[in-house]
Amino acid sequence: MNSIDETHNPARTSWITSAQSHPDFPIQNLPFGIFSNDGGAPRGGVAIGDFILDLAALAQSSLLDGAARQAADAASGDSLNPLLALTADPRRALRRAVSALLDSNSTHRDAVTPMLHPAIACTLQLPARIGDYTDFYVGIHHATNVGLLFRPDNPLLPNYKHVPIGYHGRASSVRVSGTPVLRPHGQLKATHAPAPELAVTRRLDYELELGVWIGKGNAPGVAIPIEEAGQHIAGFSLLNDWSARDVQAWEYQPLGPFLAKSFQTTVSPWIVTAEALAPFRIAQPGRPEGDPAPLPYLCGVDDQAQGALAITLEVTITSERMRAEGHAPLRLSQGPASNMYWTVAQMVTHHSVNGCNLNPGDLLGTGTISGPTRHAYGSLLELSNGGAHPVELPTGETRTFLEDGDILSLSGRMEAKDRVSIGFGPCSGLVLAAQKR
Amino acid sequence: MNSIDETHNPARTSWITSAQSHPDFPIQNLPFGIFSNDGGAPRGGVAIGDFILDLAALAQSSLLDGAARQAADAASGDSLNPLLALTADPRRALRRAVSALLDSNSTHRDAVTPMLHPAIACTLQLPARIGDYTDFYVGIHHATNVGLLFRPDNPLLPNYKHVPIGYHGRASSVRVSGTPVLRPHGQLKATHAPAPELAVTRRLDYELELGVWIGKGNAPGVAIPIEEAGQHIAGFSLLNDWSARDVQAWEYQPLGPFLAKSFQTTVSPWIVTAEALAPFRIAQPGRPEGDPAPLPYLCGVDDQAQGALAITLEVTITSERMRAEGHAPLRLSQGPASNMYWTVAQMVTHHSVNGCNLNPGDLLGTGTISGPTRHAYGSLLELSNGGAHPVELPTGETRTFLEDGDILSLSGRMEAKDRVSIGFGPCSGLVLAAQKR
Repeated sequence: MNSIDETHNPARTSWITSAQSHPDFPIQNLPFGIFSNDGGAPRGGVAIGDFILDLAALAQSSLLDGAARQAADAASGDSLNPLLALTADPRRALRRAVSALLDSNSTHRDAVTPMLHPAIACTLQLPARIGDYTDFYVGIHHATNVGLLFRPDNPLLPNYKHVPIGYHGRASSVRVSGTPVLRPHGQLKATHAPAPELAVTRRLDYELELGVWIGKGNAPGVAIPIEEAGQHIAGFSLLNDWSARDVQAWEYQPLGPFLAKSFQTTVSPWIVTAEALAPFRIAQPGRPEGDPAPLPYLCGVDDQAQGALAITLEVTITSERMRAEGHAPLRLSQGPASNMYWTVAQMVTHHSVNGCNLNPGDLLGTGTISGPTRHAYGSLLELSNGGAHPVELPTGETRTFLEDGDILSLSGRMEAKDRVSIGFGPCSGLVLAAQKR
Repeated sequence: MNSIDETHNPARTSWITSAQSHPDFPIQNLPFGIFSNDGGAPRGGVAIGDFILDLAALAQSSLLDGAARQAADAASGDSLNPLLALTADPRRALRRAVSALLDSNSTHRDAVTPMLHPAIACTLQLPARIGDYTDFYVGIHHATNVGLLFRPDNPLLPNYKHVPIGYHGRASSVRVSGTPVLRPHGQLKATHAPAPELAVTRRLDYELELGVWIGKGNAPGVAIPIEEAGQHIAGFSLLNDWSARDVQAWEYQPLGPFLAKSFQTTVSPWIVTAEALAPFRIAQPGRPEGDPAPLPYLCGVDDQAQGALAITLEVTITSERMRAEGHAPLRLSQGPASNMYWTVAQMVTHHSVNGCNLNPGDLLGTGTISGPTRHAYGSLLELSNGGAHPVELPTGETRTFLEDGDILSLSGRMEAKDRVSIGFGPCSGLVLAAQKR
């Protein structure tokens, strides 16, 4: 587990004034990403306030040595995979070094200043080349809600409380926040229609998830014990698993979701490291009375004590008309990430229990994180009860599912007593009309 | 569609004598792969008889020019992805040039000889870095047989004859033929057990499939019309989708197979090109009376006329004791690849209909190709009727599922009247005992 060190000191401030009380990127965060600007090559950077610190430039300077320099070198290319492939030690050393350089007491302000770029003038990319993307299903309230819609008599299947259910997702269509999402075509069948049709989805939805970036991999055939799972978890992002519900309903049996989700998955661009999240770890919520205990391979002492995350997740929508009329984004839901039935360590350990090798830069999704009540539902499928009860927008428009022109945004805030809050930055997408065929 | 040109002339012979009447690699085949030898770097090669022609060396020679040289350059690195990313024209030009150089009438024998390496002294690798691996389910007899076991009252789901069903597989655990397969652990639950357990799978199975290598990719959001699907299909291999049936039965609902299949998938090392397969294309078998017509986006004139492949597939097993007692491998099944309900072009077109981008080096599996009768069943699950009826080996041993020490091999022969037969080379794996935990 990651210790809470001086980099988290709430009294610590940065000489970059926009970092003070920045909702996402105060000096206590320091997430890693890949950026480019001015036509330059994509390279690693650290978000600090309204700026990005250029790690390729920092690696070339004389400001780092030892493990911190090794990590900055690994972050100098066009993806963070080499940094993720390192053990956590160099990554932590780089974090401590960057924290010291950006601290108000730093004597290196003049040397660092030329390495800072206004974030608004930078383009962010996916932080890593994703080898494999796996999506789990650990939001038990979501699983129950969706189960009620798809299988009213059998909402939560018998394996759910024993198996961290997951499935392989599509890596090629993961995109960074800000990439518009094109409404997809797909094969679908209206309930009473005699035959399916190829049509533009009429039930475009989002799913509120956390993304988990794998650091060090495991060798084929070598399972990751629960006690070691943390060593393979480099950091977190927000993840929107866009879903075409009508396509999903028609295609998903017997092999699971396929084209209903592979048109696009959006992640926020910054990897908030396991180190930055250390102060926001909380005990795994106890299982409801009567639920089975997890099998021993999924039980870790540390994981039970601090396997959950104190993150408040939120979803907002703005329609085209809302923007035209000057409305603020409408909050669709808000809830804690602790509504996960399985921890991230349990996901990693289960994933590798058969010897499946995880690689640096692999991405795991948690599955939709919904709360037990409507104000914390993580998808429109749930909010509209399968399309039956529209959500009202401030313009008087209604939504059962997403319309063209809607902007859907996820956000997350890590909060803990006596700690400076941090966040992920935006995970947003504008829905575009389907292309003509 | 690929035309049948001089490279297929059955009268054509090679000055490499082992190519004559070679079951897999006569001069009419010329498949691409990645090999290394003598501690040298992995690089592209072409199989010819008992030899491998070094494409990196050929690219450096003065024997090629134009598009053929471009293709050989692209095949000189440690994966064929750059070659696959090209359009088919340079690949075809290289095929024609290699065919001429290896022809008995070639005047370049002395120049080519140093570029040939005995295959037995070479190590073969995966031919491409696989970005995404997708497994389909187009073997209708397999789908029916398995459906009967898992859902006796509902074997073939209503979507099957409308949707080329597929799901995302695990790319990281695809291995080349010859890699032993470690019996995996997994969570499973005996039918009448009160709770699941973590155990070594007791129902390790194979699945007989074809693998399809994607060549040129499509841009995100741009679907591939059925008429253009062939331009994106670079070639074929054999594929064994090893499966832990007890894990699968417990985990697969509602999101599909996951750890039951992600411990290993084996492919044969050579990409038999679409060009080499041109003479073995046959008409798509007619659908049984009463079956629905495919939706228009899945209907192509060329695809109907020549979308199926005249490949005879075969599976053999040898147990440790069979080898000790000198028995030949036992044939478990034999059947034609035309037992596919959907063509490869239909798979590609369906996969991209939602705008999902396919990339060069992506791998598609067809799903298990079983015939309508027992002698052509493509898995032990089917051959043993879910473990109820063991298969007898020549030693008197029996098999319901695979045992440690078994070697399972797939093979395929492309056959057509007045044509020289070609094959894939082996797709084999030795089952090793599970590692201790």
